[in-house]
Amino acid sequence: MIRIFVTGGTFDKTYDEIRGALSFGDTHLPEMLRLGRSRVDVAVRTLMMVDSLDMTDADRAVIVRNCVECAESRIVITHGTDTMVETAHAIAAGVVGKTVVLTGAMIPYAFGSSDGLFNLGSALTFAQVLPPGVYIAMNGQHFHWDRVRKNRDTGVFEPL
Amino acid sequence: MIRIFVTGGTFDKTYDEIRGALSFGDTHLPEMLRLGRSRVDVAVRTLMMVDSLDMTDADRAVIVRNCVECAESRIVITHGTDTMVETAHAIAAGVVGKTVVLTGAMIPYAFGSSDGLFNLGSALTFAQVLPPGVYIAMNGQHFHWDRVRKNRDTGVFEPL
Amino acid sequence: MIRIFVTGGTFDKTYDEIRGALSFGDTHLPEMLRLGRSRVDVAVRTLMMVDSLDMTDADRAVIVRNCVECAESRIVITHGTDTMVETAHAIAAGVVGKTVVLTGAMIPYAFGSSDGLFNLGSALTFAQVLPPGVYIAMNGQHFHWDRVRKNRDTGVFEPL
Amino acid sequence: MIRIFVTGGTFDKTYDEIRGALSFGDTHLPEMLRLGRSRVDVAVRTLMMVDSLDMTDADRAVIVRNCVECAESRIVITHGTDTMVETAHAIAAGVVGKTVVLTGAMIPYAFGSSDGLFNLGSALTFAQVLPPGVYIAMNGQHFHWDRVRKNRDTGVFEPL
Repeated sequence: MIRIFVTGGTFDKTYDEIRGALSFGDTHLPEMLRLGRSRVDVAVRTLMMVDSLDMTDADRAVIVRNCVECAESRIVITHGTDTMVETAHAIAAGVVGKTVVLTGAMIPYAFGSSDGLFNLGSALTFAQVLPPGVYIAMNGQHFHWDRVRKNRDTGVFEPL
Repeated sequence: MIRIFVTGGTFDKTYDEIRGALSFGDTHLPEMLRLGRSRVDVAVRTLMMVDSLDMTDADRAVIVRNCVECAESRIVITHGTDTMVETAHAIAAGVVGKTVVLTGAMIPYAFGSSDGLFNLGSALTFAQVLPPGVYIAMNGQHFHWDRVRKNRDTGVFEPL
Repeated sequence: MIRIFVTGGTFDKTYDEIRGALSFGDTHLPEMLRLGRSRVDVAVRTLMMVDSLDMTDADRAVIVRNCVECAESRIVITHGTDTMVETAHAIAAGVVGKTVVLTGAMIPYAFGSSDGLFNLGSALTFAQVLPPGVYIAMNGQHFHWDRVRKNRDTGVFEPL
Repeated sequence: MIRIFVTGGTFDKTYDEIRGALSFGDTHLPEMLRLGRSRVDVAVRTLMMVDSLDMTDADRAVIVRNCVECAESRIVITHGTDTMVETAHAIAAGVVGKTVVLTGAMIPYAFGSSDGLFNLGSALTFAQVLPPGVYIAMNGQHFHWDRVRKNRDTGVFEPL
């Protein structure tokens, strides 16, 4: 079984029609798994629902503790892209012997044209086959946690 | 680099608004890779554009020959689900030393609610990491070519 | 209040993933009204769910009788485009003193890129403001029942 | 011919994937007209691309002047919903003898689930058939400019 931890990020941004602004509601993960007709055995838990620019060290400690304490040894984490690498570093420092794959989206799933479903299919697959370690899965590619950075100008994850 | 061979199937069915029926036009693969923001190095070639129920032995011979002759050792094939297992058998008999992943969709991509993008993300990922062999990637899972069948009643691929 | 009669047509075609073919299930009308955030006071009734090429004289008699017998004087009918004009003639012969607007779609609503929502918004509007008579509303335009034909080659409704 | 003036609003908000925020790019009007297969004779002109909460008196003067000076006597204006009523008042004070219909959306068109296409179909239809005057067309309904307000709590336009 694969554990999925939801932390928010662009993946789960929705449009608040009363305020006319982006916001977070419930996660779209279950709907996405249904749309993708996923038959991967998963358990989904929402840890937080935040923009990753607002994620604190305390938030990261919550993520690390959940990775350590959960029964599953294969984990996918949905996460905002802006500080995904920073969280990967925290997990690498605190979690051993598990395969942890962080993924996200450049466009909210609630928009019709999201990369989220493609990334989710890719991340769930990497989580099944990669050896223990911490990885970032974006754009169909995967990176080891300490060999990647997000280029803020282009929005693309690049190898270090 | 991963070679993608397009053969048609539900993946690429479109709605012909003059005839009011399903039909095949150009493949949606490039649009799907763009939507998924894929940065996997791929080369796409359309071999045929058929419903897999109409696929002949001659068609399968074309697929096998292309798998053998292409320079790439990692291959993804989009294919109708009804005879995907049959084609996997033909490839297993004719191709050695390459990782070949067949995938498809239950709902056409041109419909808003397709599983195609999820499956494409998963198949491209399996093709990067699995050892040489012939596999079917559907629903986020993968099956060895000789240990799977499609349940025609439920539409689901099951282990043998 | 506006009465909406559903008769099927491209509007309501869905993809049957087990058979890999187009089919009719429940109507998408309530979902479309919700998506459009319609606040028009309507009552929806499904009379049949057929491809308009398969519609019989008996089917048309059912439609005419429902138009005559319903309490509302303003009616929208969703209908396949191929024989929409023929049904409009039947209604014109049998219904007096009511505003009846037939509409449809060239692409099924279940596809992401349907003209159905645009046509529904237009037809509900024409039904509110046009004087008694039988009309076809397609492409944002309206035609009196006896001054229109569908061009089968282009798929477009044209004035006679 | 119907003149369409674009002023921005939720209708045309897009997601800026570099900044992770809502923004305005080019208008989606031509794409929406194509999707709706509209055959209404229209000319589209973008006057501005702003959130209606940021619209100034000078902006409204630009809209009024364009309504007065354009050759067409039937006009649709896409506009943010928050100050749509205020702009309608300005137009009513400055434009005579023309049918002006303001419309908008609660959800951006770029999201998959927008009410925009329904509203556009409705607004283009009201513009064809209503007598000279200034109207707001939302939710399939229309309101005279001085008999409507937007309920900010529910997001719904209500009669005064």
